Amino acid sequence: MVKRIAAFGEVMMRLQVPGYESLAQGRTLNYSFSGTGVNVTSALTRLGHAGYIVSTLPTNPVGDAALSYIQKLGITPSFITRGGDNLGMYVLENGFGARPSRVTYCNRQDSSFNTAPKGTYNFETISEKIDIAHFCGITLAMNDQVRQYMKSFAKAVKESGGTVIFDCNYRPSLWGQEGYEKAKPHYEDMLHLADMVMMNEQDARFVLGMETEKRDRKDQLMDLIPAVAETYSIPVIAGTHRSINDDDTHSLRGFMYKNHSFTFSKTMTFSVLDRIGAGDAYASGMLHGEIKGYSSEKTVAFAAAAGMLAHTVVGDTPTATEGDILRAMTESSSDLDR
Amino acid sequence: MVKRIAAFGEVMMRLQVPGYESLAQGRTLNYSFSGTGVNVTSALTRLGHAGYIVSTLPTNPVGDAALSYIQKLGITPSFITRGGDNLGMYVLENGFGARPSRVTYCNRQDSSFNTAPKGTYNFETISEKIDIAHFCGITLAMNDQVRQYMKSFAKAVKESGGTVIFDCNYRPSLWGQEGYEKAKPHYEDMLHLADMVMMNEQDARFVLGMETEKRDRKDQLMDLIPAVAETYSIPVIAGTHRSINDDDTHSLRGFMYKNHSFTFSKTMTFSVLDRIGAGDAYASGMLHGEIKGYSSEKTVAFAAAAGMLAHTVVGDTPTATEGDILRAMTESSSDLDR
Amino acid sequence: MVKRIAAFGEVMMRLQVPGYESLAQGRTLNYSFSGTGVNVTSALTRLGHAGYIVSTLPTNPVGDAALSYIQKLGITPSFITRGGDNLGMYVLENGFGARPSRVTYCNRQDSSFNTAPKGTYNFETISEKIDIAHFCGITLAMNDQVRQYMKSFAKAVKESGGTVIFDCNYRPSLWGQEGYEKAKPHYEDMLHLADMVMMNEQDARFVLGMETEKRDRKDQLMDLIPAVAETYSIPVIAGTHRSINDDDTHSLRGFMYKNHSFTFSKTMTFSVLDRIGAGDAYASGMLHGEIKGYSSEKTVAFAAAAGMLAHTVVGDTPTATEGDILRAMTESSSDLDR
Amino acid sequence: MVKRIAAFGEVMMRLQVPGYESLAQGRTLNYSFSGTGVNVTSALTRLGHAGYIVSTLPTNPVGDAALSYIQKLGITPSFITRGGDNLGMYVLENGFGARPSRVTYCNRQDSSFNTAPKGTYNFETISEKIDIAHFCGITLAMNDQVRQYMKSFAKAVKESGGTVIFDCNYRPSLWGQEGYEKAKPHYEDMLHLADMVMMNEQDARFVLGMETEKRDRKDQLMDLIPAVAETYSIPVIAGTHRSINDDDTHSLRGFMYKNHSFTFSKTMTFSVLDRIGAGDAYASGMLHGEIKGYSSEKTVAFAAAAGMLAHTVVGDTPTATEGDILRAMTESSSDLDR
Amino acid sequence: MVKRIAAFGEVMMRLQVPGYESLAQGRTLNYSFSGTGVNVTSALTRLGHAGYIVSTLPTNPVGDAALSYIQKLGITPSFITRGGDNLGMYVLENGFGARPSRVTYCNRQDSSFNTAPKGTYNFETISEKIDIAHFCGITLAMNDQVRQYMKSFAKAVKESGGTVIFDCNYRPSLWGQEGYEKAKPHYEDMLHLADMVMMNEQDARFVLGMETEKRDRKDQLMDLIPAVAETYSIPVIAGTHRSINDDDTHSLRGFMYKNHSFTFSKTMTFSVLDRIGAGDAYASGMLHGEIKGYSSEKTVAFAAAAGMLAHTVVGDTPTATEGDILRAMTESSSDLDR
Amino acid sequence: MVKRIAAFGEVMMRLQVPGYESLAQGRTLNYSFSGTGVNVTSALTRLGHAGYIVSTLPTNPVGDAALSYIQKLGITPSFITRGGDNLGMYVLENGFGARPSRVTYCNRQDSSFNTAPKGTYNFETISEKIDIAHFCGITLAMNDQVRQYMKSFAKAVKESGGTVIFDCNYRPSLWGQEGYEKAKPHYEDMLHLADMVMMNEQDARFVLGMETEKRDRKDQLMDLIPAVAETYSIPVIAGTHRSINDDDTHSLRGFMYKNHSFTFSKTMTFSVLDRIGAGDAYASGMLHGEIKGYSSEKTVAFAAAAGMLAHTVVGDTPTATEGDILRAMTESSSDLDR
Repeated sequence: MVKRIAAFGEVMMRLQVPGYESLAQGRTLNYSFSGTGVNVTSALTRLGHAGYIVSTLPTNPVGDAALSYIQKLGITPSFITRGGDNLGMYVLENGFGARPSRVTYCNRQDSSFNTAPKGTYNFETISEKIDIAHFCGITLAMNDQVRQYMKSFAKAVKESGGTVIFDCNYRPSLWGQEGYEKAKPHYEDMLHLADMVMMNEQDARFVLGMETEKRDRKDQLMDLIPAVAETYSIPVIAGTHRSINDDDTHSLRGFMYKNHSFTFSKTMTFSVLDRIGAGDAYASGMLHGEIKGYSSEKTVAFAAAAGMLAHTVVGDTPTATEGDILRAMTESSSDLDR
Repeated sequence: MVKRIAAFGEVMMRLQVPGYESLAQGRTLNYSFSGTGVNVTSALTRLGHAGYIVSTLPTNPVGDAALSYIQKLGITPSFITRGGDNLGMYVLENGFGARPSRVTYCNRQDSSFNTAPKGTYNFETISEKIDIAHFCGITLAMNDQVRQYMKSFAKAVKESGGTVIFDCNYRPSLWGQEGYEKAKPHYEDMLHLADMVMMNEQDARFVLGMETEKRDRKDQLMDLIPAVAETYSIPVIAGTHRSINDDDTHSLRGFMYKNHSFTFSKTMTFSVLDRIGAGDAYASGMLHGEIKGYSSEKTVAFAAAAGMLAHTVVGDTPTATEGDILRAMTESSSDLDR
Repeated sequence: MVKRIAAFGEVMMRLQVPGYESLAQGRTLNYSFSGTGVNVTSALTRLGHAGYIVSTLPTNPVGDAALSYIQKLGITPSFITRGGDNLGMYVLENGFGARPSRVTYCNRQDSSFNTAPKGTYNFETISEKIDIAHFCGITLAMNDQVRQYMKSFAKAVKESGGTVIFDCNYRPSLWGQEGYEKAKPHYEDMLHLADMVMMNEQDARFVLGMETEKRDRKDQLMDLIPAVAETYSIPVIAGTHRSINDDDTHSLRGFMYKNHSFTFSKTMTFSVLDRIGAGDAYASGMLHGEIKGYSSEKTVAFAAAAGMLAHTVVGDTPTATEGDILRAMTESSSDLDR
Repeated sequence: MVKRIAAFGEVMMRLQVPGYESLAQGRTLNYSFSGTGVNVTSALTRLGHAGYIVSTLPTNPVGDAALSYIQKLGITPSFITRGGDNLGMYVLENGFGARPSRVTYCNRQDSSFNTAPKGTYNFETISEKIDIAHFCGITLAMNDQVRQYMKSFAKAVKESGGTVIFDCNYRPSLWGQEGYEKAKPHYEDMLHLADMVMMNEQDARFVLGMETEKRDRKDQLMDLIPAVAETYSIPVIAGTHRSINDDDTHSLRGFMYKNHSFTFSKTMTFSVLDRIGAGDAYASGMLHGEIKGYSSEKTVAFAAAAGMLAHTVVGDTPTATEGDILRAMTESSSDLDR
Repeated sequence: MVKRIAAFGEVMMRLQVPGYESLAQGRTLNYSFSGTGVNVTSALTRLGHAGYIVSTLPTNPVGDAALSYIQKLGITPSFITRGGDNLGMYVLENGFGARPSRVTYCNRQDSSFNTAPKGTYNFETISEKIDIAHFCGITLAMNDQVRQYMKSFAKAVKESGGTVIFDCNYRPSLWGQEGYEKAKPHYEDMLHLADMVMMNEQDARFVLGMETEKRDRKDQLMDLIPAVAETYSIPVIAGTHRSINDDDTHSLRGFMYKNHSFTFSKTMTFSVLDRIGAGDAYASGMLHGEIKGYSSEKTVAFAAAAGMLAHTVVGDTPTATEGDILRAMTESSSDLDR
Repeated sequence: MVKRIAAFGEVMMRLQVPGYESLAQGRTLNYSFSGTGVNVTSALTRLGHAGYIVSTLPTNPVGDAALSYIQKLGITPSFITRGGDNLGMYVLENGFGARPSRVTYCNRQDSSFNTAPKGTYNFETISEKIDIAHFCGITLAMNDQVRQYMKSFAKAVKESGGTVIFDCNYRPSLWGQEGYEKAKPHYEDMLHLADMVMMNEQDARFVLGMETEKRDRKDQLMDLIPAVAETYSIPVIAGTHRSINDDDTHSLRGFMYKNHSFTFSKTMTFSVLDRIGAGDAYASGMLHGEIKGYSSEKTVAFAAAAGMLAHTVVGDTPTATEGDILRAMTESSSDLDR
């Protein structure tokens, strides 16, 4: 049951100030390369599948370094093209307690991925060589060419019989003043094409402009998600509710809506090392559960545990194996394996 | 409402063993330069004011490094003189949980600051170029020449119409066996000159030898501080109560006594990264509130939030902007800004 | 009351990935040298005794580095022989929260210690120069030659009037399929020779195959330990109950069985930096209390505090002085000594 | 004779892979902030003058870090404006022996400096507060707005009686296909305004399109530089000839053309640690010599020694004091001062 | 002309003390994974070919880390099997000047590769999927099973029409007392199967026991290599002469014997950063020249430049692209590309 | 022929900025503990002897760290006393090429060693437990109490039949304006007591005020050293001539004067990593040669090779074994041992 999964999306360079210093205090940066697509396909590679990235990297040492890093993660680089001069970068300064972490983007819009010229990708060929394609809403915010690529690829996948996964993620700062109004039709195009969607009630309310009279988050979720599934004919919708506790631990509960029915994981509470990428881990767990034909209960529990473990590893990219996740679902606490 | 604030005091080199190793276990030291005066004026620089240090640095590479560091913090070095061979140093070994941190001072008494010859500073000229001067009780422990400098500067500031801030801090290990008896008259001299004093009931009891029949700390505070204000004609007295909780978090509550009335902040509880310098952050927040004409409620809340944030940054020196502090006062928890 | 204590056992090289990265993510390793014997005797050296290791190190730069490290800890190297090519190594990847730490052993069986040829040690001579010898059950798992060395040394110590300490520790992965069955007679040989044994009810149940109808751990302990003491004529048996709490703190309670009577420490709860070696700290505290003639209450409290402090220091090897431990037993929380 | 020198130009973030690894091999980057203007004015600050930068930094943590760094170098930040989102960055991978170092620029054109809107700077006000302004030809390559700023500032400086320094540096990769043709008129505008120009015969030949029948570099220099001085009415032209020797040492000879006469330094040969910024050190030495009224011989020797020393320090920015440079001019080799 | 090249051989973990400290002085180790096969196929990957490793890695975190590292180098891991517990390791302490570097092997014989059970590899299947296979004489020293694997694979490659490369490298310390006598027949077996052999006159003399009356190395080479080629019917033999100069630079001259004729590169002299793996770079350059159909002159020059560049990069594994090497062959010295 | 050697002298903390940054540029310091006595006795420990330090370390974490470090070097700490608060420190900034290294002392005069109260050491007892005592002229510069200790110890050693080694080293900056005049009688006292003296003609000229009409250094040496030997009845005088070459290599030639006859080593030329402590290595080599009864030729060659190797190791303290040194004397260059 090994599947071939390709993600379409940007690879970014993460420049992280070590420890808890600010950029002004520090002297060195740790760097790695990530992105939603990298995270999801790398996670699935660790779960035994074959992962691919469909993207463009610059033709210079920064692009070389990104490529090496992606290969290290186990992703097959066959669908990566090279061109342009820039890779999107972001600086991450770790927060501590009452002081939040800060992400500062550097020159994302001009990246090789976002400026890849027409005709860069041959989506028909790629679609024939894969089973599943993953897309993220953040990518929709870039520009018309990228949005067109995204939809073309999704259509090609559908036509060749593949599965389309869409993460309905939305980042307000990237859409400017027009915001939801400008974004909604593009999200709808993707929702119509998708076989599985990652979202929760907030996406339904804000991105799709849906309304509910409920006040409680869970009630809103149970009100809106079935409507989304029906409107856009989406077989599976999944997502999480996440909250931060007073003692800086996080709580996470996963859900899945399939066959007109909701399944919820238990609420997990845990310490957090690096929270970026945890949503991608949840998505990869959900997808793996579906591929393996797990029950909805097991799938949601597996995805939630994958999400929890992703909060405990360094970097954006999940590293857990299937064994690690199954164990985190079932075992009582152990602090040392030897 | 930008003010010019100068602090009189020693600049010290902090040599910190990284992580949680002891000096005997480690191999490297992180170094920075700080001191109460550096902390307070640097914090005020971040809040939009102009900060100065009145001090003496050695004429050698250690002094050069201290100067560069102070400049980096945004402090204007115009009132720094150079002379002598030594900078006070301290080694900091981080504690963990039940194991306390340790500070070992190296050769503080022979520093260039503490041995600066007569006539080193022209306090009249300096006083005309500043609005506010900050002094710390620790400095009183050094020697007669330094004490004389301190009082002369405070008087000059008063004469030129400036404001005098005095932090009533007392460190027993520096005064030897004579202790409070020897220290008290010097503290009193400074209290008579001060427009704002940082202290709490413990300083009143131990340094000033005042007595109270109350047992509860807050009751003692409310009993003694008004007496101090009256005795020494101090317009504003402010300070904090701080405690360490079982789960290694700290709790902090600020107070302010002004116009015969107490104002208290709420008690804040938070995780701690580096506690040295947090009192200086509180003082700088208090001073900023007064400069800006905040209400007492807002000033105390601002100072307490400044103090809390200073526990979350690396090093002795506060780095929060006004925006950071206002946000910490009002916002619900966020763990990532992007 | 300074005693000379020698431990017989393997010195291993600990290769630790810094921070929370996995070996696959990291680039560098921090290395140190440890082992139960190193930990116990080094801890006792810090408590004022003279510590020795009876072991074999390879005749190459790895052995040189181990020797330097042991000397740094204050252990006298007179009873260390050199020979062979290999030092046992293990890679330690730190866990975080829900993700456990992992230890991967590299080539332990072929180490210079485990392959030291017949006649390597002159136990009679050594026994005359020491007061106490320490042995660990892990060592029994190695091979016949090592087991023979261990028992010969213990007998020589007894014959020369010395004291034998045996830590009944058992690691299942080292005994293969035969497991307890193969191990039991060797453990019994050591128990018959021992003056003080470190163990708890689990060792009695699993290693010695003893049975109890009790369900609660403490009840089991109080049921089985007196039987062990009687069966093998052991004057003192001591150990701990340890548990991990939901907020990742640990709880530890020490006990001691002597003169037909149990003494328990209070249950201590604390944050954990590095848990490896904490059992060795407890053992060294127990031994120090007995050497000094502390009351059972004080000895158990001292040992438990030593164990707690060992959780707060970097590396396997305890570093606390007697003063540190006494203070941790009695003082209220302090977070900074200056 | 302390002068106030302001440089107009971009501040860039230098991201350097430590040691000799490539970006693909490495994990961390050392970062600093530099630029021709930063280098020249910081160097002059170390020589006792007051240095300023006229530039724009982004309103985000990257801009904050750049500002702190510039302050650390002793540069007064009064003429720095804040705006925009990007700072120009470059990645530096160190070469070794036969393998050259590589610089990869990231998003330079969209930096806050290069996109600063019309009316950002008040050059009249600035010109009245300084004595000397420094400009670099690299800045001319950016865009029309920047070129216009540059010329306006130079004119304002001339009008207020100040001195204009122009470094005729040209980087082919920044001018695209039109190259010299597009660049020449802008260089000529600056040459007409300049009181001192840094250049050599290659700039005359390639940028200005001048021709010579000589083949030897020195002959070409002596042929063309007087013609440049006459054509553009430039009082002082100075520069260097630099070459790399087989054993990886570098050789440098400085020259100065003033009052119709050439002065050459001796040829200095030396080992190189970091060659970026050495030309800026030469320029600062030349300027310092002229300010101090040194003889041409002493000025050229001083500038060449400043250039040599800049090859021996970490980073782009020179750090030598006047004493360091005078000593390097005169003393025999010493390897340790204590 | 992209070829598929697989190398059969061990992957080792290199543990390098940073800088110039000994293991006893240091605290941290930099680690990477390499081996002749890794080096040669990774280098060819950088030259545009598809590289594979045929090897066995342990089923534990050390094996995971090795796999990630190999993937990062661009090697396709399809022919890697997992099993056993150990990876060969070596500690590298860098020498300086008169003090040589030291390599200490840890537990090489018991590695997963050297203990892979019978039937681990399916050489017939692998041979059909590749064009070229690379073998190294060091591997012959391991044990009978490994030697049998090696010969079986080489035969399978020949049978499926592929090309066999054999590096005649010999390490005395691995063969024990029987030495050359025991080794010779195994080397001869491989020589009979090889299409290209890496060796020089010393291998002929010592491993094959051939005699010559010449004294000069080049004369010996020209005397013996044709005899080797004839005896074992080897189409191409290539290698280098390397020497260390008084100023710690190295000199290298490559040769190639093909069609009864010798071709020599010029002697290149250069500074050395890390000399391990430079021979593998030469071999990969030679192989690339042959694949591309370069003239013998160009092939030898290309291989020698590849070897030189490998001395300038960190780690065992060459990183140069075809462009880097061609440029190093032709260009005059450049020290900075920007 | 294992000897017990004790050195009387100060232990200092070396704080070294890593790489080539200045203290103002850097962020971290590498620290170690050394001193002439530490260097000489540690070097002799590596050569198989038993080394001791007679000194005083502060009773604080800095003293604990120094003690651990000394133990790591293999020195037996039995003669170390604890007291006072300060350890002498120095900051070392590495030079590069034309830029010299800089040493900045911090508070040396107030160190625990230099302020050890009367009666700190029991030299009679110590003298009975050792064979050889080593003293350094630098120590004479400290104060009267230290000078008195030094002479008392030397006398006690002579009285108990031991050997006295005196290194005639002189540091002008420590003696103030009176300089040689004040120093000479103290040096003479030590010379009268010494069995072996480390010095050269410059010490004779400047410290002892001896005159010679020769101009060449070697001629001066051969003129003055026999006179010194006669005047003070010194059996052996040894030392080196050292020079720095244009390519930053150093040259060193050792000499020895014994039985009215000079022996010279060949001149060795080599690259230098860390030159501090190389003189101590020479001294230890000389002493080892004398202990072992080497011929003068072998002793001088051994000492010179020890001195050369000490230039190639990190830190002040020599690390070479007898085997390393013998090999450096005889072997042709090797760059890698494996």
